[in-house]
Amino acid sequence: MSIPKPVVPSLAQLTAFAARVSPLKFLTPENRKRIVRAASPLPFRRKEVLFLQGGPARSSWMLYSGRIGLMIETQSGRRQELEHIIPGELFGTLDRLFGHSKTYSLTAEATVESIALRIPDEMFKSAFSGDVELMSKLLGLCADRLAKMTELPRMSMEPPRTRLAFAISRLVRVYGNRIPIKEREIADIAGIAPETAYRTLHEFRECKFISPRRQHVEVLNPERIHAVWENASVSR
Amino acid sequence: MSIPKPVVPSLAQLTAFAARVSPLKFLTPENRKRIVRAASPLPFRRKEVLFLQGGPARSSWMLYSGRIGLMIETQSGRRQELEHIIPGELFGTLDRLFGHSKTYSLTAEATVESIALRIPDEMFKSAFSGDVELMSKLLGLCADRLAKMTELPRMSMEPPRTRLAFAISRLVRVYGNRIPIKEREIADIAGIAPETAYRTLHEFRECKFISPRRQHVEVLNPERIHAVWENASVSR
Repeated sequence: MSIPKPVVPSLAQLTAFAARVSPLKFLTPENRKRIVRAASPLPFRRKEVLFLQGGPARSSWMLYSGRIGLMIETQSGRRQELEHIIPGELFGTLDRLFGHSKTYSLTAEATVESIALRIPDEMFKSAFSGDVELMSKLLGLCADRLAKMTELPRMSMEPPRTRLAFAISRLVRVYGNRIPIKEREIADIAGIAPETAYRTLHEFRECKFISPRRQHVEVLNPERIHAVWENASVSR
Repeated sequence: MSIPKPVVPSLAQLTAFAARVSPLKFLTPENRKRIVRAASPLPFRRKEVLFLQGGPARSSWMLYSGRIGLMIETQSGRRQELEHIIPGELFGTLDRLFGHSKTYSLTAEATVESIALRIPDEMFKSAFSGDVELMSKLLGLCADRLAKMTELPRMSMEPPRTRLAFAISRLVRVYGNRIPIKEREIADIAGIAPETAYRTLHEFRECKFISPRRQHVEVLNPERIHAVWENASVSR
């Protein structure tokens, strides 16, 4: 029996999605519609590869649902997971589109069953080029991504509490204060053991930082959550 | 006896420097002059700290001479050197200027005696905002920096030959094919032992990839050098 692939979203669902996520939400409705029509929503099973490190790149990618692991691979075949992409995030895009690289700098693999939007590079690039407002939004996305890439090596050395706060801050940036993800999955994104996550999430609940609901997590105090990981470095 | 600080460059020297390096070289001569006049060329001794991770950020930085180590520090005081900045490169800037962060994401410390240009953020930002051409140059810089940040964790796992090729490619991007740096320093930037570097550089000379001169290294075949580290990942 083969595992069924996830059902791809309708055009109406894609249009609603595009109106909600950065940077597509900044486009005019007409330009957004043009991108949505040119985009292919592709279903991936768990462990399926979307693209390979070093492979030729002609498409921009955005995650619609599920979760994507970005992996780096060495010459000798050593593999390391660099980060997880969550729905609403771009991947395999900002480090190439306006730069010199014509290949993907890492391998993308579905961590769970996922739907990813593949958008032709030229389409994506032309929708944002030539408009000062849109380009400054893209610069903002690049800046946040650079900041995240700088934080990642630190996070791998930080204790679970700091990592969990960092993951929550990141989810708030994508989803706002109502994160449509269960506590267990947040632990997974932060890369910490479920039991450890449970203790820390309990502490965050006690401090009124978060409030878990049935299908989502409500972030009550994003500033304090942010302070947990950012101030980590100033307390010298 | 105190160690003298390096002598700061004259306005004429700074103007010539700005006309040569990205992204300042893309500005009109008048705007470039304005930035140069607003910039403070600051001398730093070896081991002096330029700014601290988590500290408030109001300035953009560009290295004029010397070398700057960028360090990440954990809550518990663990420290790790992330990368070296070479003359002509921006640092502590692109991950904040158009993004959400108001603090430096890492600590900058002079590795050797250095001169860094400190430019007020507002000045730097306003010189580039509002012009489509200039913003796409900045997006290009951000993209290349993102690509580099993605490669760094892989490089830390790669053999010396790959790391050395990566360092040379990076130097070519900043200086062109005539790298005004001695072989020993290139090894240092690649983060490999001098003896190992010597063997690999010898191999690169034999293959006619590079040709060392008295005060600089001539890169004869930048494409082949690039292929050494980029193709590293495709050979699966």
